[in-house]
Amino acid sequence: MNLRTILFLVSLFVTVITLGMFSAVGVAWYYGEDICQMRLLWCACCCLFLSILGGVNYYRDGFRPFLAEAGVREGFASVALAWVAAIVLGALPFVICAKVRFVDAVFETASGFSTTGASVLDLNEMKLPQCIHYWRCLLNWLGGIGFVMFILLVLPLRRGGKQLYNAEVPGLKSASEQLTPRIKTTAMLLLGTYVAWTALVMLGYDLLGMGHFDAICHGFTTVSTGGFSPHAESFAYFSPLLQWASIVFMFVSACNFALHVKVFYKRQFDYWKDEEFLWFLGLTVGSGLVVALFLAQGSGMLKMLNGNELARGWELCLRTSLFHIVSMMTTTGYATSDFCYWGVSCLPILFLLLMTLGGCAGSTAGGMKIGRGLVLVKQTQSELRRRIAPHVLPDVRISGGRVEMEVVNQTMAFLVIYLLTAGICCILLTFLEPGISLSTAGSAAISAISNVGPGFGKLSPSYTWGWMCGCSKLLLAFTMVAGRLELYTVFVVLMPRFWRIKTYR
Amino acid sequence: MNLRTILFLVSLFVTVITLGMFSAVGVAWYYGEDICQMRLLWCACCCLFLSILGGVNYYRDGFRPFLAEAGVREGFASVALAWVAAIVLGALPFVICAKVRFVDAVFETASGFSTTGASVLDLNEMKLPQCIHYWRCLLNWLGGIGFVMFILLVLPLRRGGKQLYNAEVPGLKSASEQLTPRIKTTAMLLLGTYVAWTALVMLGYDLLGMGHFDAICHGFTTVSTGGFSPHAESFAYFSPLLQWASIVFMFVSACNFALHVKVFYKRQFDYWKDEEFLWFLGLTVGSGLVVALFLAQGSGMLKMLNGNELARGWELCLRTSLFHIVSMMTTTGYATSDFCYWGVSCLPILFLLLMTLGGCAGSTAGGMKIGRGLVLVKQTQSELRRRIAPHVLPDVRISGGRVEMEVVNQTMAFLVIYLLTAGICCILLTFLEPGISLSTAGSAAISAISNVGPGFGKLSPSYTWGWMCGCSKLLLAFTMVAGRLELYTVFVVLMPRFWRIKTYR
Repeated sequence: MNLRTILFLVSLFVTVITLGMFSAVGVAWYYGEDICQMRLLWCACCCLFLSILGGVNYYRDGFRPFLAEAGVREGFASVALAWVAAIVLGALPFVICAKVRFVDAVFETASGFSTTGASVLDLNEMKLPQCIHYWRCLLNWLGGIGFVMFILLVLPLRRGGKQLYNAEVPGLKSASEQLTPRIKTTAMLLLGTYVAWTALVMLGYDLLGMGHFDAICHGFTTVSTGGFSPHAESFAYFSPLLQWASIVFMFVSACNFALHVKVFYKRQFDYWKDEEFLWFLGLTVGSGLVVALFLAQGSGMLKMLNGNELARGWELCLRTSLFHIVSMMTTTGYATSDFCYWGVSCLPILFLLLMTLGGCAGSTAGGMKIGRGLVLVKQTQSELRRRIAPHVLPDVRISGGRVEMEVVNQTMAFLVIYLLTAGICCILLTFLEPGISLSTAGSAAISAISNVGPGFGKLSPSYTWGWMCGCSKLLLAFTMVAGRLELYTVFVVLMPRFWRIKTYR
Repeated sequence: MNLRTILFLVSLFVTVITLGMFSAVGVAWYYGEDICQMRLLWCACCCLFLSILGGVNYYRDGFRPFLAEAGVREGFASVALAWVAAIVLGALPFVICAKVRFVDAVFETASGFSTTGASVLDLNEMKLPQCIHYWRCLLNWLGGIGFVMFILLVLPLRRGGKQLYNAEVPGLKSASEQLTPRIKTTAMLLLGTYVAWTALVMLGYDLLGMGHFDAICHGFTTVSTGGFSPHAESFAYFSPLLQWASIVFMFVSACNFALHVKVFYKRQFDYWKDEEFLWFLGLTVGSGLVVALFLAQGSGMLKMLNGNELARGWELCLRTSLFHIVSMMTTTGYATSDFCYWGVSCLPILFLLLMTLGGCAGSTAGGMKIGRGLVLVKQTQSELRRRIAPHVLPDVRISGGRVEMEVVNQTMAFLVIYLLTAGICCILLTFLEPGISLSTAGSAAISAISNVGPGFGKLSPSYTWGWMCGCSKLLLAFTMVAGRLELYTVFVVLMPRFWRIKTYR
């Protein structure tokens, strides 16, 4: 294990955070929040100092020799350490500018960086400065595609690069391999698309009348499928038109970015050839319509998060249903109404399944990803076939291409880790929070591991996560980060074997 | 597809049911239930007629030629058809002797044969004749090891035999292969052990003061991990001593029967060498102690199913906790107290996980089986190792023996089918029962697929399943049978490919 290399890698992460923090200083300056501006500036300088320290310590002996030594272990370890550093540093602005308790700030930051969007801050009760609102949403955006993308542009890692990349960029591996042979070029293309799409979404929101500041914040959190919002009413604060726009933006943000890259750079429109995309579209529209039907059949007014009670018209039902289905499935977590009071009994289990499934591979969405689900189902079909005809060879195909048995095995292992983590998190929660209901604990675990945001019961959109004890918050923060890193990274680093054996490259 | 062979195989199942029904006639005669006796006799004669019909139709052209043609498809199809026939015929006594609605009778019979033990009959309100109590419990016992065992003794199936065997006898494949090379001998050994163990349990219950009739009934339902009881209070009706005895009996019944066979016939005591057994023991004792601790810490009296309210002494807490942990994990489903009112918040998720896991492979317990869980976890560990060191080959070992990749793949496919079935069942339930809560629907689905019996919410031990609508009952009956047949059989038969291709042998 090359400690100096790891420190250097971590310092690169810190640099990104530093840049973000300086932009928050700019926001504080723009809104004339003087106290916050000074404190944030102080914070940002600390971060800058740390990142320079790491860089200098590394640069002392020249670049090349160490980078060549960076292997699998350095990659995993630096990602893990970088997340710890990022969460601690990212929590500072909350503590110093908004007087949030440290453990709450850690939860909020972990929730931000992991694009979960679960909040402990009750925005109805406390008034946050604009720069902190901006910082929260920026956390989502930075976490979105993983700041490793930035590092990949800077760092010519030889062997560790690919591992890091796989650890941080969910499911992009297969998609990226189709794009360009060089991982650095792919990363650049994806980053470019991410930035361009963010700009487009911000522009869209702004033109539809959201206001500049809200457009920027919601642009960050929509594209990253994070779900933080500066408003306690979430999207119920905005007009129906903006809600429709948000449905489209969330949906597009949870599609495989490789498909978007092809449109942006190669003028190829490959959406209809992609099985995963078609399933994503079908599931969204299908369950959206079913829920809309149930919603329209229900009695009484529909209560929105902003307190309005509206009659159940067809447009409202369809919009509200689609909005929440898309929000949950893309693991964004925006809400316009508290779905726990809709009286639709199929909703909780449907939402839980969609949350578990998540968006497409190669997007910023959390969850298992639809692509993985497809692999699992097709592999199972193949095994069923082999029950009748044992001489038939296993054959799993997605979008016409054959899936390697190695990938199938990894997907299966992912499912087991996912279920185990969710189960253990849920059990621990029931230990830590006496009197918690099964659906609250279960949805908390799944919401955290899939990076969604809201849950059911006492975690529905009208509540915050603030009522939990500190231990639960730390547990959930850990689960969120584990979910964001696609579980593997965290569990590999936690394996004793990882630290024991010396020469893994 | 050879229809005549299938009919013959089904008629063998019917013969077994006929024999059981005649024994129920004997019980009715013993208790002087004259009306029931006549009706049951009429029923039994109908069954006898059907089974003779199937046999004669087959025997007409001599035995051999058809049996030689019985292949995989005939095996699967006859198991599926036999279950349908068995459930319809088994439901008759309920309809004609106890005036139960047909759909309720079908649910009760499916629940009986699948060793689930979920009941729609409220024994507090309706008084069943003794012969019907006996018949209910006998259903459990017959379903327990699968009446296919009987058929295997009779039938020299050439190719279909093994498939049938694998379909009906959960997870015994690997265990049986260690015992004797011939499947018929193994089946005979297992059947002998099953019968002998049942006799032992009955004797044990009787000696400890349960009374002859109750001892016979609970002997049937304990060994088969079924869980029907002639008493509405379930085991709260009996003394603490009997409850302790039942804990032991349930536990032993959910161990791999191959281990028992070795003790009975080979004088080999291999329990401590068996990893699955050790995990089973550890999980039971571990979670039993944890729950006992929570139970002892709680406030207020502990309400038993017989209405008594007892102070939370350490013996009571330990016994009650262990009883329910063992009852849920072995998928028996007995209860002494309604655990939903204990106020232990970790209980629902713990029970759900234990129910999903179930007992050991090669036992009459339902659920996924601990052995499968071990394979899944070890395969995942192996994949994690390969993340650090990609050159390491996959290696999954249980009790020292290597698990073939084929078995691993089948286990993975099993997990996916299990989850999908449970999820779909849960969603359909929420459609069929407006206002059902997530934990009720979820526990109903898992309880049915794992053949447990009780659930949470409105399905806790103090309720019956009678409040559901007919469609839900049929859905759950199907799920129970699918769970009992280890899912594969049912889904293979439902595949279009199964019916399309002609020459699978």
